[in-house]
Amino acid sequence: MLEPGELSAGGTARLAGRRARHVLEVLRAGAGDRIQAGVVGGRMGEAEILSAAPDEVVIAARLDREPPPPAPVALLLALPRPKILRKVLQAAASMGVKRLVLLGSYRVEKSYFASPLLAPEALREQFLLGLEQGRDTILPEVELHRFFKPFVEDLLDARFPERDRLLAHPAGAAPLEALAPAGARAALAIGPEGGWTPYEAAALRDRGFAAITLGPRVLRVDAAVPYAVGQAELWLRSSSARASPRTPR
Amino acid sequence: MLEPGELSAGGTARLAGRRARHVLEVLRAGAGDRIQAGVVGGRMGEAEILSAAPDEVVIAARLDREPPPPAPVALLLALPRPKILRKVLQAAASMGVKRLVLLGSYRVEKSYFASPLLAPEALREQFLLGLEQGRDTILPEVELHRFFKPFVEDLLDARFPERDRLLAHPAGAAPLEALAPAGARAALAIGPEGGWTPYEAAALRDRGFAAITLGPRVLRVDAAVPYAVGQAELWLRSSSARASPRTPR
Repeated sequence: MLEPGELSAGGTARLAGRRARHVLEVLRAGAGDRIQAGVVGGRMGEAEILSAAPDEVVIAARLDREPPPPAPVALLLALPRPKILRKVLQAAASMGVKRLVLLGSYRVEKSYFASPLLAPEALREQFLLGLEQGRDTILPEVELHRFFKPFVEDLLDARFPERDRLLAHPAGAAPLEALAPAGARAALAIGPEGGWTPYEAAALRDRGFAAITLGPRVLRVDAAVPYAVGQAELWLRSSSARASPRTPR
Repeated sequence: MLEPGELSAGGTARLAGRRARHVLEVLRAGAGDRIQAGVVGGRMGEAEILSAAPDEVVIAARLDREPPPPAPVALLLALPRPKILRKVLQAAASMGVKRLVLLGSYRVEKSYFASPLLAPEALREQFLLGLEQGRDTILPEVELHRFFKPFVEDLLDARFPERDRLLAHPAGAAPLEALAPAGARAALAIGPEGGWTPYEAAALRDRGFAAITLGPRVLRVDAAVPYAVGQAELWLRSSSARASPRTPR
């Protein structure tokens, strides 16, 4: 993944450090090989390796494709502990999630908000790893809100304009297939280890989040996020597929 | 999680080592507190902590519930690299997957089969961590097959009796919502980093695996597994929900 300024007018770029090692050691590519390339926030395509030395790889990129469309799901996540957060950030970016709010909750330990992983450059690094995995170039937007109540009362509606709002919460949950989406995009809220408190779940339900169950088991957040995003995407698509052949009734 | 022989006739058990530390340090429970408990392969319920010392916790368990029903999805996975395998084993167990085949493939490095993680006791340990997370007691059955062709030709049909067979593979894929399940259970095949070879994908399609896409992005196996299991479960349920109110046509 290249930064916007790195590509010369002739389409070449020099890679050092992690990216050079990735090309040489993980991709095991050398001069003459072709690799995937993309510019952060821009186009993607292929690059030919012009030269490869241990800490400098020179490439000529031909970026002739737009990145894939965003995933139709935005995430509202109770801030997970740092070890899990790292995985969740990468996974969310790799799945094409483009909007992510990390929220405090009664069961989120205060210390998690002091994690160095939450520094903007650290978040960006995890997202870039996820984008490289998913072959995408568009960074997710992320916001951190330490206090549940003011976020939900004052900001939630602006941050999540989606009419379809889902809340992974076992109490009072409907099976997802019993709900019909109103649109093509959904907001999905996933709680902390131990779950949302009854107050939090009620506050989100008041804001139109429908409680759904992710099954009879308790998933860790790093499994719950891809599980629920996968289901939400299929749910949105299935419904529009059923509705789309507009035959007269 | 208790081993079958650990519970006394009176329902008490002594925990040491990892489990005692888990109770004291992760759950932060002490004498008089109640915790979740279960017997491997058996019932589950609550346990009261009778006494708690740094390396010995004594509990009295009342196991009055059956474990949750198995997930309706069995997995055929190209063997991932060890670091990812660990996560996938835990996630699969936490989701209630009860049958798992780890298979060689052209793009699976031979060295992965030498991983100490594949020793029976190491696999069991990862599964137990997943079961504890998911609050389940039934260990998955797992098989290792190093060679793709003989497994697919001679053993696959016996191991995966499911008529609904899905193959995560972009080439020639249908969207999942375009397929209708024949039954209530599915087998799901997920390839290695870099994907199945055309030969492998064709061999699996010959065995009735329908190619589906997990979206326009390339997911790492530890995200692809929960993403695809979540979708397959919703797919199986949605279809039976649509079919179930047996109104005359």
